[in-house]
Amino acid sequence: MLRSCTAGLRSIWALRGRREGAPRLSMDLQPARRLFSTEKVIHKDWALPNPSWSKDLKLLFDQFMKKCEDGSWERLPSYKRRSTQESEDFKTYFLDPKLVEEAQLFTRGFEDGLGFEYVIFKNNDEKRTVCLFQGGPYLQGVPGLLHGGAMATMIDIALGSCTGGAVMTANLNINFKRPVPLCSVVVINSQLDKLEGRKLFLSCNVRSVDEKTLYSEATGLFIKLDPEKSST
Amino acid sequence: MLRSCTAGLRSIWALRGRREGAPRLSMDLQPARRLFSTEKVIHKDWALPNPSWSKDLKLLFDQFMKKCEDGSWERLPSYKRRSTQESEDFKTYFLDPKLVEEAQLFTRGFEDGLGFEYVIFKNNDEKRTVCLFQGGPYLQGVPGLLHGGAMATMIDIALGSCTGGAVMTANLNINFKRPVPLCSVVVINSQLDKLEGRKLFLSCNVRSVDEKTLYSEATGLFIKLDPEKSST
Repeated sequence: MLRSCTAGLRSIWALRGRREGAPRLSMDLQPARRLFSTEKVIHKDWALPNPSWSKDLKLLFDQFMKKCEDGSWERLPSYKRRSTQESEDFKTYFLDPKLVEEAQLFTRGFEDGLGFEYVIFKNNDEKRTVCLFQGGPYLQGVPGLLHGGAMATMIDIALGSCTGGAVMTANLNINFKRPVPLCSVVVINSQLDKLEGRKLFLSCNVRSVDEKTLYSEATGLFIKLDPEKSST
Repeated sequence: MLRSCTAGLRSIWALRGRREGAPRLSMDLQPARRLFSTEKVIHKDWALPNPSWSKDLKLLFDQFMKKCEDGSWERLPSYKRRSTQESEDFKTYFLDPKLVEEAQLFTRGFEDGLGFEYVIFKNNDEKRTVCLFQGGPYLQGVPGLLHGGAMATMIDIALGSCTGGAVMTANLNINFKRPVPLCSVVVINSQLDKLEGRKLFLSCNVRSVDEKTLYSEATGLFIKLDPEKSST
């Protein structure tokens, strides 16, 4: 099944190539096409400002970068693809080496500003993280509002950032209290509440920049992975 | 804030245009650029087979299309943007007319085969739906596996498809029992369990095509929207 999907994608791109008469690829298309070449992928850190970031997002980013100066907080980098070490941690979960090479992190597959723009800061002593998130126009649900699934995705990532190491989500329980306007900035405060063996119990809330609006509250149960066992 | 986001996106695209020396747009780039023109958008139905669909997905699609012949089931079409009628239903939620025009449905922003490939069939008498879903390589979480947020997104959509009319998600409670291999096909069976005033209580399960593997179970609480009131 996995191979047929990969083959399907190749046939689509091959078809497009023929239709367009072997064109020179635009800059924006290169990342997708490059996946089938042997060229090395440059691991760009996506958790840094770009011109699509709003004034609010840039301001909050600068405030947290200041907090990082004394070492109490750290900014977590974010890549489209896993590092060699991470891939090694997850090796028993690899299903098809070709597919893993082509795949990329769900939240980093959009062009700047259109999808998930976010950065996570971690306070290791306090076992908590703060995620600054701006959801772009390609994340729409109800017109003018962020899709509930996009919010759930960011909550999953924010909670996961509190765990450290290789984990998988076992439960997500999300209360959507107010809808999030598309392109607004929200702040997700997450914390580790309890650790029981390989089980991590976490919680978070999603608020507006001025903290006056509570958009969502959620709890999560995550399980630390055992690299010796395959779960599929 | 909304205007600054729109302005931010424009400045990015303007910059790219200058860097590339006013190039002829490739076919793949046109949909994103077209958003700023006055050209009419053709409402393509995305809930139909394309060459990226695996054999399993096509087979299931054909089986359900057969069930539609006697009228007991119907295939739900799916568009990137809302129809005029839907936009009218949601008009009090519009925040910025320009932004709404640019925005598109979260799950339909990917090229064929890379993201969310799905179709939903509805049985109105039984108040249930079946969603056939193939998650592409750009929806990766742990290497080789579907991102929990992508699964949560499809569960949100599948549950919502049982409601009929304009609704918003109030609660999602998802148990992720087994990880979903990237590019595999899953079947989401959703049903309406209870209706209390404007509250709709729903549940679903996510299984493999052969029904032997239970990937996830979830419940959802949705609220029917009152078009006369703005919730933002």
